[in-house]
Amino acid sequence: MHTALTELLGVEHPLVGFNRSPAVVAAVTNAGGYGVLAASMYTPAELDAQLHWIDQQVAGRPYGVDLLVPEKFAVSDPDDLVASLRAQIPAEHRAFVDALLDEYEVPVPATAAPEDETSDEIAAAINPAGAEALLDVAFSHPISMVANALGPPPADLVERAHAAGIVVASLVGARKHAERQLAAGVDILVAQGTEAGGHTGTVATTVLTPEVVAIAGDRPVLAAGGIATGDQMAAALALGAAGVWCGSVWLSSEEDITPRAVKEKFLAAGSSDTLRSRTITGKPARQLRSAWHDAWDRPGAPDPLPLPLQPMLVGGMWERVHAASAEGHPGATALDTYFIGQVVGGFSALRPAGDIAREMVSDCTRRLRALGELASS
Amino acid sequence: MHTALTELLGVEHPLVGFNRSPAVVAAVTNAGGYGVLAASMYTPAELDAQLHWIDQQVAGRPYGVDLLVPEKFAVSDPDDLVASLRAQIPAEHRAFVDALLDEYEVPVPATAAPEDETSDEIAAAINPAGAEALLDVAFSHPISMVANALGPPPADLVERAHAAGIVVASLVGARKHAERQLAAGVDILVAQGTEAGGHTGTVATTVLTPEVVAIAGDRPVLAAGGIATGDQMAAALALGAAGVWCGSVWLSSEEDITPRAVKEKFLAAGSSDTLRSRTITGKPARQLRSAWHDAWDRPGAPDPLPLPLQPMLVGGMWERVHAASAEGHPGATALDTYFIGQVVGGFSALRPAGDIAREMVSDCTRRLRALGELASS
Repeated sequence: MHTALTELLGVEHPLVGFNRSPAVVAAVTNAGGYGVLAASMYTPAELDAQLHWIDQQVAGRPYGVDLLVPEKFAVSDPDDLVASLRAQIPAEHRAFVDALLDEYEVPVPATAAPEDETSDEIAAAINPAGAEALLDVAFSHPISMVANALGPPPADLVERAHAAGIVVASLVGARKHAERQLAAGVDILVAQGTEAGGHTGTVATTVLTPEVVAIAGDRPVLAAGGIATGDQMAAALALGAAGVWCGSVWLSSEEDITPRAVKEKFLAAGSSDTLRSRTITGKPARQLRSAWHDAWDRPGAPDPLPLPLQPMLVGGMWERVHAASAEGHPGATALDTYFIGQVVGGFSALRPAGDIAREMVSDCTRRLRALGELASS
Repeated sequence: MHTALTELLGVEHPLVGFNRSPAVVAAVTNAGGYGVLAASMYTPAELDAQLHWIDQQVAGRPYGVDLLVPEKFAVSDPDDLVASLRAQIPAEHRAFVDALLDEYEVPVPATAAPEDETSDEIAAAINPAGAEALLDVAFSHPISMVANALGPPPADLVERAHAAGIVVASLVGARKHAERQLAAGVDILVAQGTEAGGHTGTVATTVLTPEVVAIAGDRPVLAAGGIATGDQMAAALALGAAGVWCGSVWLSSEEDITPRAVKEKFLAAGSSDTLRSRTITGKPARQLRSAWHDAWDRPGAPDPLPLPLQPMLVGGMWERVHAASAEGHPGATALDTYFIGQVVGGFSALRPAGDIAREMVSDCTRRLRALGELASS
């Protein structure tokens, strides 16, 4: 399959695999697709180590990174910023989260970082200086794409990437976002439908993809959301996409680092068991429904805070919940969740990421041939 | 294009057109697709007249009807039923609707039916005796499909249809609904994604269609929701559907009887301008967002009532709003809305329904051929 995407990225198949696990990124790239590492959760030193490992695995084959690069921020000094953000978290919200941990009897792990430290790391990563430090690391590796998941990239990021021969991709959930991204000079648009995991809008992939294709000119558009099989990949190509951007499907891979307890919840879930919620990041993001969401829906529960306050509020808590749920703690398991799209309903077993990628491509090719024959039937 | 659907229905193209306007139904059938009349809004006499007209237009080509046939109902006597239902509508709800009409200064049209009469007609149509009367009319015409939009069809409907050589279709919004429909003996499943207009679930077409295909065996599955172009039709076929069920796209046809003021709002709308709301029928249905929804979102607004109480509450009001909005009344125009899917964002002009159908089929065929070539590129 040759598309505008395979040409631009120099890959065999129009399949982009987005994940926070270096082993998934390497497996997708080595299967002839294009792996993209979700870098925002790492410190600069961690990211450097992850990318070194990927470099060794892929032997020169292309891959990219994804960051949350904010276009602007109210405060310029990161030290003041973290403290001032921390002060903005209401006591009511802290009390709500603490009471929930008590109610579900989630233990404090002996080895966990203090929650304020986690919270500060989150604040640091989401501000421009933090994103800049991650970018410096990323640009010191042979990446060929930098993707930005929240809003248009700053002009200097686009200039810096283009000067280095690196393409810029952006995720969009509505046509008006795509217009802003095109004006900002991005090279690849990812039209992410509401069925996708993580931050999503309300428009479905079937509708959003052709809307974005219609205004993108010769820039490749990838479809994202609802794509975990070769048939769904073929459907995306039918909608005019030059390829697909898949995130959720890799959470059914053996290499994915999501806690095993959460992955087992994914395997048991149906496609109706996700929801868009602001309770983890402060922005609507699709995730598996759990007791966590029931608690925020109760009468008297506070409203989630905006980004980055909500992740600062709940980041340390999630470390406790994940740790306890990994030990089989019932309360923590009931609360536990992670970002996932509606394709979770199709998960039946954990498999190697490379096998998933190869099967998607071969099933897609078979479906495309069948569709060609259908036209003449 | 030959699929399990074209074979079962004896049509040229796997394109089903669902609409309440007889002229749209006839145009789709005459273009080589399959027209389905939404019959629930008509009295038996009205339906008989509409079907007579269609019979004359299609000259023996196949078409079907869609009804809301409830599986069971608490009260058996329709006279008692209407009165008892009417008594269940809280005074608070009546006051809310009346105040809204006052606030938007919606005039009472001189020729309108009393609101209680409208309300009673709605109650009568949604109860088993009312549905039975419509079915009797439908079966007296040469229909070849009866579709049921809400829940599994009663066993006697399936038996009666099959005895007459008529196939039964059902709309489903989740895999578990599809399982119940298969158990009830339906012949065609319509997998309706969340992006569709009217009653919808939360799962998108990209995910729902293959889920339903996987359990349907040799029974044809149609994809619905997000399908208004040939590319979207091709995507549905890629997902394993044997054809498409389109509703919203016909609201951009010249023949569609939706009030002109509403159709003009559709032409101006974007794909993000719809929402799922219980405020018209009592069940979540996708429709164009308007001042109506803002009012129900206000603090202190009542919760919508269940079906059939909510349509009984608001049915007469909508007649007033539509009538005034057709005259250009600003308040009524602000409130006015109708069921529509996210594809509304692609509407640019009103066109003949037959042209829409023919263009969808030819664009779909072209896309399928291109996909076949892509597989070998």
